[in-house]
Amino acid sequence: METELSRQLGVEHAIFGFTPFPAVAAAISRAGGLGVLGAVRYTAPEDLKRDLDWMQDHTDGMPYGLDVVMPAKKVEGVTEADVEAMIPEGHRRFVADTLARHGVPGLAEGEASGWRITGWMEEVARNQLDVAFDYPVKLLANALGPPPADVVARAHDRGILVAALAGSAKHARRHAEAGIDVVVAQGCEAGGHTGEIASMVLTPEVVDAVAPVPVLAAGGIGSGEQIAAGLALGAQGVWLGSLWLTTTEASLGSRALTEKLLAASSGDTVRSRALTGKPARQLRTAWTDAWDDPAGPGTLPMPLQGLLVAEAVSRIQRYEVGPLLGTPVGQIVGRMNTERSVREVFDDLTLGFERAVDRINRIAGRSEP
Amino acid sequence: METELSRQLGVEHAIFGFTPFPAVAAAISRAGGLGVLGAVRYTAPEDLKRDLDWMQDHTDGMPYGLDVVMPAKKVEGVTEADVEAMIPEGHRRFVADTLARHGVPGLAEGEASGWRITGWMEEVARNQLDVAFDYPVKLLANALGPPPADVVARAHDRGILVAALAGSAKHARRHAEAGIDVVVAQGCEAGGHTGEIASMVLTPEVVDAVAPVPVLAAGGIGSGEQIAAGLALGAQGVWLGSLWLTTTEASLGSRALTEKLLAASSGDTVRSRALTGKPARQLRTAWTDAWDDPAGPGTLPMPLQGLLVAEAVSRIQRYEVGPLLGTPVGQIVGRMNTERSVREVFDDLTLGFERAVDRINRIAGRSEP
Repeated sequence: METELSRQLGVEHAIFGFTPFPAVAAAISRAGGLGVLGAVRYTAPEDLKRDLDWMQDHTDGMPYGLDVVMPAKKVEGVTEADVEAMIPEGHRRFVADTLARHGVPGLAEGEASGWRITGWMEEVARNQLDVAFDYPVKLLANALGPPPADVVARAHDRGILVAALAGSAKHARRHAEAGIDVVVAQGCEAGGHTGEIASMVLTPEVVDAVAPVPVLAAGGIGSGEQIAAGLALGAQGVWLGSLWLTTTEASLGSRALTEKLLAASSGDTVRSRALTGKPARQLRTAWTDAWDDPAGPGTLPMPLQGLLVAEAVSRIQRYEVGPLLGTPVGQIVGRMNTERSVREVFDDLTLGFERAVDRINRIAGRSEP
Repeated sequence: METELSRQLGVEHAIFGFTPFPAVAAAISRAGGLGVLGAVRYTAPEDLKRDLDWMQDHTDGMPYGLDVVMPAKKVEGVTEADVEAMIPEGHRRFVADTLARHGVPGLAEGEASGWRITGWMEEVARNQLDVAFDYPVKLLANALGPPPADVVARAHDRGILVAALAGSAKHARRHAEAGIDVVVAQGCEAGGHTGEIASMVLTPEVVDAVAPVPVLAAGGIGSGEQIAAGLALGAQGVWLGSLWLTTTEASLGSRALTEKLLAASSGDTVRSRALTGKPARQLRTAWTDAWDDPAGPGTLPMPLQGLLVAEAVSRIQRYEVGPLLGTPVGQIVGRMNTERSVREVFDDLTLGFERAVDRINRIAGRSEP
C-alpha cells in the first residue's frame, strides 16, 4: 500500500497509527506503518525522553512520528492558577455532586491527577519538542491546527514533515497556507476532537482544498475495506487512532475500560464537550450525559472544562466507576470486539485492503492481473 | 460498474438514484442507473398514475423503481383530524409567531398546503401500491423500515425486489428478517431521516449484519470516488438522493432554494427534528434553529410535527422566504455547485469511479490490465 507520502517517509504501508502508548507506536512502525506517539500526557520532559529512548530501542530502525498539542493561538503569561480562578463555583459543585451521586472515592494522598491542562499549553509542548528534536522523528503532528511558524521551520530544518488535523476544508486550507506538509482530515465519526462532516464527504473536500498537499483520511477506519475507501476518496494514507486501544500492547490502565470498549457498539459514542470544552467523540456515559443534559450547568469553554474535570476523570478511572468510565474513541469502536496484538490487527488491515481491491476490480470489470 | 444486484435488476451501473421528480428518475434510468421515484407527495392515486405513465414513455424500456413511505407500525383508524387535535396550542402559537417575525404571508385561498401527513399514512401508501403494481416497477423501496408482510408478498409475486432503509445494523437485521431483498444503509451524512452512524462505519456493519442480503451505501455520495469508497466498503451499489436536486431536470419549484443549494457548503446542514419530528438532515435555516433552540417549545413527535408545520413549510416555499427556506439534503450539498443535466452528472460519476479504481490499483501496486 504505497503512496508518494509513504515512500517519502520510508514506510511500507500508508497506514498512520496514532497512540499514546510507546509499545503500540513501536509495534505499528515495526509492522510497516508509521507509529505516531501522542505526547500530550508527558508533562515532564524527562518522561518523554525515557519513552523516546525506548522507541529507539524497539522500532528496529523503522520510522516513527510524534503528536503534540500546540494551541494555534498563543496565550501569554497565563498560569494554571489563572485558569483555575475562572471556573465558576457552581460548576465545581456540579462535579462534586455528580461524583458523590455515583459514590466515587477521592484520590489517596500522592496520587496525582492524571490528565492536566499543562499538557495543552504551548510552553509544555515546546519543552516536548526540545526533547523530540534530538530523536530521528519523521513526522510531527499537531492536534490543534498548525504549530507556530518557528516550530514548523525547526521541524523542516531537521527534515521532519509537519502534519495538522482538520475537520473542515476551511481549516485545512489555513493549515496548508501555514506551510504544513500533511493534512489529517478528521471526520465526525473519529474519536477525540472532531467537526461535524463525515469522512465520506470531508476527505475529498480536503483533498481538493489543499492539493497538492497530501491528505490522510481519519475517522471511521478500522479495516482494510475502510482503508481502501479512504484511499479511493483521494487520501495518500489513513490515520487510525481508536483501533489500537484494544490491542494487547495498549495499557489503558483499567480492565473495566477495556471491557467497555470491547462491548461497545458504533452507536455507543457521543460528540460531547464534557472532556475539554470542545466537541470530542467519546464513549457515551452517565458522565457525558450529565454534562450534555440541558438541565445541568453545561460545559465551560476550553481550557476551563479540561481543568475543571481533570481530577474527577482521574478518580473515575482510578476506581473504575462503571457508569461514568469513558475515553475518547470513534464510532469504529463497534468493530473493536477482540483483543489482538498490533501485528495481528495490522496484518488484518493489509489483507482486507487487498480483498477490497480485488472486489472493486471485479465490480469495475477489470481482469485481475 | 456491475454487481450481482445490478445484474439482477438489469441495470448497467450499480447506481440507484432516489428523487421525487419523474424527469430526474427517468433520466437516471436512461443513463444506465436505476431511477427510483419518491411517491410520498402523491396523495391522489391518479397523479401517481399520470406520472408512472410518463415514466413508461420516457425510460426507453429501462428499469426503474418506486419509493413509498409505509410506517412499520400500523395505526388503526386514526384520522388526520385526530392527530390535529393532539397538537398543543403553544406549538401552534410558536409556528405563527416565527412566521410573523419573518413576515411570511399566508397562502391565498385554494393554494393547497403541499406536504401533508396523509402521504405518511398506510392507507395512502396502499393506494399508491395498487397503482404501482400495474407498472413494471423493478424495485420497491420503503423509507420507514420493511413494509407490511402482505405488501412484501405482493411485490415478490410480481418479481419486484423490496428495499428498506436502515441507519443501524440492528434495524438492518430486522429488515432482513422481514424478508427484505435489499438494505439501504443510510449514513448520518445523508439527507432526510438518518441515524447517527457515518457511512464509513455503517456500510460494512450493515453488510456484515445482513449478508448475503445485498446492501446499498447511502449518505455522502456524490462523486465517482465516493462510489468507489462505498463499493470498497462492501456495498453492492450506491443510493444517491441529494445530488439530483440541482440537476436541470429537477423542479424544486423555488429558484431561491436552488440558489441556496448551489451556494451551501458541507457544513450548512443540520440533523433536526424540525420537519417531521424524527431527526432528518436538511439545510440549516432560521427555521431549524428556532425548533432546535432550547429556549423554544421543541419539536413534537412524528407524525404531529409534520402536520403542525405542513402549512408553514408551504408558505415559506411559496413566498421563498430566504432565511427560513430549506429542504432535506445531505452533507454532499457542498459539492453541488453547478446545475447540470442528469446525464452530465451521471457520466461524471462513472468516469470518476474509473479514475478512483485506477488510483487504488496504483497504490496497491497492481499493474494496470
